[in-house]
Amino acid sequence: MTIQTYTVSGMTCGHCVNSVSSEIGKLPGVRDVKVDLASGAVTVQSEQPLDDTAVAAAVDEAGYEVVRA
Amino acid sequence: MTIQTYTVSGMTCGHCVNSVSSEIGKLPGVRDVKVDLASGAVTVQSEQPLDDTAVAAAVDEAGYEVVRA
Repeated sequence: MTIQTYTVSGMTCGHCVNSVSSEIGKLPGVRDVKVDLASGAVTVQSEQPLDDTAVAAAVDEAGYEVVRA
Repeated sequence: MTIQTYTVSGMTCGHCVNSVSSEIGKLPGVRDVKVDLASGAVTVQSEQPLDDTAVAAAVDEAGYEVVRA
């Protein structure tokens, strides 16, 4: 099990959190996604280390941006 | 056709706008809902005058609050 943390900008409400969680959750091997709205911290638990580019693409798909991986 | 404007607090992003629009749009006779995110102004076009209580309940259902009807 791997845990990686990202900082995502632009999330302003619970719907934003849901969008980001949902898109990252679609990546293969992802078990859990936790988002702290206030700080933008996104913690991803996965079966194997994730490709940061894939995570950034998922966040982009949701309409937000990874500012720190 | 009737046009009524409400002020709704708590909307922070496009998802919030969609939620409010969607809930108000379910009210009988509603033809169109326009939301200005910055000001919180919600303009509702309907076939007959709407009951403010019903609009407030729809906004509440979406998770927000009418502060001025």
